[in-house]
Amino acid sequence: MSAVNPDQDAPYLRLDTAVMEANIRAMASSAQTRGLGLWPHAKTHKSAKIGRLQLAAGAEGLTVATVGEAEVFAAAGAPGIFIAYPLWMTTARAKRLRTVARQTLLRIGVDSPAAAEQLARFDIPAEVMIEVDSGHHRSGCQPGNAGELAAHTGRVGLKVAGVFTFPGHSYAPGNGRAAADDEGRAVTEAVAGLESAGVTAPVVSGGSSPSAAYSRNMLTDIRPGVYVFNDAQQLELGTCSMEDIALTVVATVVSKPAGRVVLDSGTKTLGADRPVWATGHGRLLEHPSARITAASEHHATVQMPGPLPDLGSRVLVVPNHACNAVNLHEEYVLAGGAAGFAGSSRWAVDARGMN
Amino acid sequence: MSAVNPDQDAPYLRLDTAVMEANIRAMASSAQTRGLGLWPHAKTHKSAKIGRLQLAAGAEGLTVATVGEAEVFAAAGAPGIFIAYPLWMTTARAKRLRTVARQTLLRIGVDSPAAAEQLARFDIPAEVMIEVDSGHHRSGCQPGNAGELAAHTGRVGLKVAGVFTFPGHSYAPGNGRAAADDEGRAVTEAVAGLESAGVTAPVVSGGSSPSAAYSRNMLTDIRPGVYVFNDAQQLELGTCSMEDIALTVVATVVSKPAGRVVLDSGTKTLGADRPVWATGHGRLLEHPSARITAASEHHATVQMPGPLPDLGSRVLVVPNHACNAVNLHEEYVLAGGAAGFAGSSRWAVDARGMN
Repeated sequence: MSAVNPDQDAPYLRLDTAVMEANIRAMASSAQTRGLGLWPHAKTHKSAKIGRLQLAAGAEGLTVATVGEAEVFAAAGAPGIFIAYPLWMTTARAKRLRTVARQTLLRIGVDSPAAAEQLARFDIPAEVMIEVDSGHHRSGCQPGNAGELAAHTGRVGLKVAGVFTFPGHSYAPGNGRAAADDEGRAVTEAVAGLESAGVTAPVVSGGSSPSAAYSRNMLTDIRPGVYVFNDAQQLELGTCSMEDIALTVVATVVSKPAGRVVLDSGTKTLGADRPVWATGHGRLLEHPSARITAASEHHATVQMPGPLPDLGSRVLVVPNHACNAVNLHEEYVLAGGAAGFAGSSRWAVDARGMN
Repeated sequence: MSAVNPDQDAPYLRLDTAVMEANIRAMASSAQTRGLGLWPHAKTHKSAKIGRLQLAAGAEGLTVATVGEAEVFAAAGAPGIFIAYPLWMTTARAKRLRTVARQTLLRIGVDSPAAAEQLARFDIPAEVMIEVDSGHHRSGCQPGNAGELAAHTGRVGLKVAGVFTFPGHSYAPGNGRAAADDEGRAVTEAVAGLESAGVTAPVVSGGSSPSAAYSRNMLTDIRPGVYVFNDAQQLELGTCSMEDIALTVVATVVSKPAGRVVLDSGTKTLGADRPVWATGHGRLLEHPSARITAASEHHATVQMPGPLPDLGSRVLVVPNHACNAVNLHEEYVLAGGAAGFAGSSRWAVDARGMN
C-alpha cells in the first residue's frame, strides 16, 4: 500500500497535496483562459491553508455557506467572502458579520423581499447577490422576478452587486450540458430584469462542477468547490479521473467473510451520501473495479473481482462526496506533499462543524 | 413554535430530556421484564451523561464501536464496555485498551481466526465476543463456524465470554420479525457450536431496534441504541411514534419559493442517510404530513399540505438517523428538562468524531 502512514490510527483523512495543487492550478488556469473570476467554494475543504493556496493561484475571493465559515476565511486573509446562501439575518449573526465586513469585502445572498428587508434592519456593510433558480428548484427567486427583487433590495437601502445561481440539477449522469443551458437562460433573463429595473450590478456568478465546462460566457464568476479534491461522485459523473482524486479516507480491512471485505470506514467517516445513480457508497483509489455495496456507521462492505485485500491491511477509500467527508474529520494527514509543505504533516479542518 | 431557544443560533441539536428519560425507562423495563441484560449502544448519543442515565436505569454496561468511545465511557464510570466491532488490534490501540481494561470489564468482538491471533499478540485483559452473521451479511462468522472460532480463540490464550450478532437486515419495512427469526436460528446454532467445541461462554447478545420486540428468548443481552432518541427511520419502520422522538435539529426557514420551503438544516447537520424505503430526508416533528423531498449540505427542501411556515421561523426536524446526526454536532441544547437537569442547558457530545 503506497504512502499510508502506519503510525497514524485509521480511519483518517489523507490529502495528497501534489494532486490537490495540480487541481488548484488547473482550475485557476481554466478560469483565467475563459476570463472568469474564480471564487472557490471553501465549504468543501474548510481549511484556511487550502483557501490561501486557492487565492495565491489567482482566486479573487472565497465562497462560503455559513457565518462561521465566513469568519474563518476572513481571518485567513481572503480579500472577498461571498456567503452564497439565503441567510436569514439575526442580531447575533449581524454582529459577527460586521466584524467580517471590516476584514474583507462581504457579499450575502438574498432570494426574497422578506430576506432583503430583514437584512436591511441590521447595519452590515455588505453587498447583496440576488439568487436565481436556474432549474435545481432549491432556493432562489424565479429569473423573471430578479429585477423586481433587486430593485426592492436597493429601495430598502442595500447595495446589489449582482446575481448568482447554482445549477445543481447537473448532478446526474449526462445532465451537465443541459444544466449549463438552463443556467445561461436563467442568468440572461435575470440580468435583463436588473437592467430593466435600473439596477447596475455587474457580477454574474454561476457554475457547478458537472456543468462548469459547458457554462456560457455571460458569467463573470464561477464558484467551484469539489474540484480541489474531487470525489467518487465527480468520478462517476465523468468530471474527473482517478488521477485527479486528492482526498481519500485510509481504512483498515477488519473482516473478510466469503466474497467480500469489510472496512472500518463507514458513514461516520465517509459520509452517508449515496445518489441513486452512484454505483455504491464510494470507491477504492487503487482498486477501480471495487464497489462499496453497503455502508453503515462503522462498516463499509466491499466487493471486487480478483484477490481481496488482507485482513489488517489498509486501503484508500474515495468518498462519494468530499464536502461531507471532510466535515467529519478534525484534520488532514498530508501525503505526497510538494516541497512547500515540508515539516507540516497535518492541517486542521478549521471550519469543521460550522454548518 | 414550542420550546425553541431564540437566543441559540440555529441549526442546533435539541434534546427533549423528558422524552429521552421516558424512552430510557421504557427500554429498561422491557429488558427487565424479559430477563435480558441491557447494554445500550452508546454510539447513538456519545454522551457520558446519557450513558450514566442508562446505567442508573438498570443497564449492565455500555456497547461502543470504537476505541475512542470505549475510553469516554470507561472514564464515565461504566462497569462494563463491549466494543461490538471486529476491531483490528494495533500496538497503539492495545496501549489505550489496557487503560480501559483497568477501569472496567472490557469485551471485544472477533469474527476471524486472524483477528483473534492478532488480538492475542497484545496483553489486554479483555474478554472476547464471537461475532456471528445472522443474515445482515456485513461482518461476523457463519453460525456453523462459531464453535471452531471460539475454540481457536481460546487456544491462542483469550477468554471467550459469548457470542453476538446484529440482525441489521431488520432495517426495512416489515422485516423485523423475519430478522429476529434469523437471529434466533443463528445464535442457537452458534451456541450449540460452542458447546460442541467445549467452550463455556454464557453471553448471547443480539437485537436491533426494529427486531428487538420479536427476539426469541435465547438471548441473554440486548444492545439497542437509537431507542434513547428515536428518529425518522424508526418512525417509518413503526418502532416508535412522534411522541417518542426526543432528538430534533432546530432549523430556520430561509427560502419560500412557490409550493415549498427551504430549511438551513442540510446533510451537514442532519446527516445524509436516506434509505430507499424512507419517505424523504427526515420529518418535521410538528408537521407530520410534511416531507423533506431534497437535501444538500445546507438546504432541506420541504413540501407539505396546508400553509407553509413563515420565512425566518423555526421548525423541529427529525433526522432520518439519529446516530449520524448527533456526530455532526458539538453539543445538545436541552429542552423539556426534568427537575434533575435544572441549571444544565447543554451537554457535550463527548465522543463526537471518535469514529
